[in-house]
Amino acid sequence: MERIYLDNAATTSLDKEVLDAMLPYMTTHFGNPSSIYSYGRETRLAVENARKSVARLLGAHPGEIFFTSGGTEANNTAILASIRDLGCKHIITSPIEHHAVLHTVSHYASGDVSHSFVRLLPDGHVDLKNLEEQLANTEGKCLVSLMHANNEIGNLLGINAVSALCKKYNALFHSDCVQTVGHYPTDLSRIQVDFISAAGHKFHGPKGAGILYVNRELQIKPMIHGGGQERNMRAGTENIYGIVGFAKALQLAMDHYEKDSEYIKSLKTYMAEQLQQEIPSVTFNGDYNGSSLYTVLNASFPLSEKSEMLLFNLDINNICVSGGSACSSGANQGSHVINEVSGDPNKVAIRFSFSKHNTKEEIDIVIAKLKELM
Amino acid sequence: MERIYLDNAATTSLDKEVLDAMLPYMTTHFGNPSSIYSYGRETRLAVENARKSVARLLGAHPGEIFFTSGGTEANNTAILASIRDLGCKHIITSPIEHHAVLHTVSHYASGDVSHSFVRLLPDGHVDLKNLEEQLANTEGKCLVSLMHANNEIGNLLGINAVSALCKKYNALFHSDCVQTVGHYPTDLSRIQVDFISAAGHKFHGPKGAGILYVNRELQIKPMIHGGGQERNMRAGTENIYGIVGFAKALQLAMDHYEKDSEYIKSLKTYMAEQLQQEIPSVTFNGDYNGSSLYTVLNASFPLSEKSEMLLFNLDINNICVSGGSACSSGANQGSHVINEVSGDPNKVAIRFSFSKHNTKEEIDIVIAKLKELM
Repeated sequence: MERIYLDNAATTSLDKEVLDAMLPYMTTHFGNPSSIYSYGRETRLAVENARKSVARLLGAHPGEIFFTSGGTEANNTAILASIRDLGCKHIITSPIEHHAVLHTVSHYASGDVSHSFVRLLPDGHVDLKNLEEQLANTEGKCLVSLMHANNEIGNLLGINAVSALCKKYNALFHSDCVQTVGHYPTDLSRIQVDFISAAGHKFHGPKGAGILYVNRELQIKPMIHGGGQERNMRAGTENIYGIVGFAKALQLAMDHYEKDSEYIKSLKTYMAEQLQQEIPSVTFNGDYNGSSLYTVLNASFPLSEKSEMLLFNLDINNICVSGGSACSSGANQGSHVINEVSGDPNKVAIRFSFSKHNTKEEIDIVIAKLKELM
Repeated sequence: MERIYLDNAATTSLDKEVLDAMLPYMTTHFGNPSSIYSYGRETRLAVENARKSVARLLGAHPGEIFFTSGGTEANNTAILASIRDLGCKHIITSPIEHHAVLHTVSHYASGDVSHSFVRLLPDGHVDLKNLEEQLANTEGKCLVSLMHANNEIGNLLGINAVSALCKKYNALFHSDCVQTVGHYPTDLSRIQVDFISAAGHKFHGPKGAGILYVNRELQIKPMIHGGGQERNMRAGTENIYGIVGFAKALQLAMDHYEKDSEYIKSLKTYMAEQLQQEIPSVTFNGDYNGSSLYTVLNASFPLSEKSEMLLFNLDINNICVSGGSACSSGANQGSHVINEVSGDPNKVAIRFSFSKHNTKEEIDIVIAKLKELM
């Protein structure tokens, strides 16, 4: 049986066109972009063209885009810099952020830096009233770190509303956009945000390549010190093919956004409908048919002796889905997100996440298999 | 005129065999290694096999090898962890370290953490007597960070002697081995060292992939927080192809070490002899025909109106060499290493660095061109 891959929120396949764009920099154009001779300048040009392209596609200035080794490094840099360089003394975040934010916040929030969690509404959305209360009651400079879309339940943040609150209370705003950049048009010239993070491998680009957007009104220092790469903001020889691949993937994603997103959304809708029809006991986690990623559907099934083994049995049947975030699912200790928003011990939660490569036929097979395995 | 690339200490071309080993992970095997289903386990297995192979080739335990985004991140992690997690209060380093160490040390050496530079001998080697004096006079836990081979002048450190001193004075020892791993056999079961750093792109492996070796007797925390990757030591979705490429490149380098190193050494010797014969005013920086990298030859030429433009003119003639480390050469502000070891303002220093792909014919062309351009 062919493998059915419905875990595109964990990682996506690399587009052939992206690989083709990367390959010249893995073969003939290998010069160090920091070299002064023209052969190094070829690769320097590739890096700077990638930066310009990414900036243009995100409505940013090239000087606001810094290439990193991925979304996690970008999140770490934003949080560290907010505290170390920008004087933040308090961090407001949510209990359902990715561990790349949660664990970083808990690492740095010590001594004279504190943190708190914003309250969540029953559907998993951030309670904006509570956010405002917390902002109003915080003394000293504050960082708000809230992800644009939750990687497990798909809920989309009202980013403009949060931005307005941050502006009103003079707080910095970081948004982990790892699940939205490449999946939604992003126009940073219209959103007042201080930092956003993105990762290439979430939209058919390469692993090991991400960006940190830093609003140009901010002056921060690097997290990784050394050579003068990335305008002294991120030392280390540039991962040229990763950078070129990131830019190419983002360009392709935006070129085909309307068609791809409409198609993928139809898959999500179809799967939700079919699940409800075929497995009436199903429930969905988060605001799945409201303000939600079109790529993610998180469903809960009643716990039984059989359904307890659902993930395991789906795997045996060559169906790739996940229980929690990939980054923490190895341990299978349950998802901190699901525990937070609908922690029902009598249910088994499964995240289905879709890409342009999936089909309705695949969904039919998965649902038939789910019925069999329940 | 064909390009002649004599800047292999800056970066090397990716071996075809390495690319071939990476490609499956850029096409069919794209699963997230942290996923629990078997498709993720395929890539997890690739990462763990890479770790085992690297460990075996370095005489280390797999649990001592952590994959990073490169040598710079590895250096940063070792220095940060020594201070934050292992209680180091003083860092002894040298003034001719790579900026990935120098700038990291100067960033973290503040408040109650201090640093000092070991004295250098006239040939650029570390003065071990001075190192011992400094170790004997340091109060509190000390970190010694000295590179195994200098990237600009090629000097090799007496790593066993430094290791013995560190042991005697109970200091931690970190060695930036970016220029030696992949170029020399490394047997960490015979060298008492706490941390070493290496980068794949210095030995025909991929950019964006490096390792940090951490002696298993040490307990440190990550620099980049988030998911549980790398046994909680380096968060972020693994750059699988980078990791697979690193391991393959190291294996190839060690498989062909004897033949390649002998050949490259013959190129260096030939170039030194021919330079002395054809341009008698040449001098060499560092201990070039003593304890020195076989891959690097750093030569100085008398300053003249013409030679001042040497790097520029070599570039026009499609000859890639460098004045300093690539990581800082963009600004062409002179090399901190050359300034330190033989800072003669009446000379122009050029680093020639060789790989298995260079030929004597190329060296003949370069020398003829140098004569013309002097």
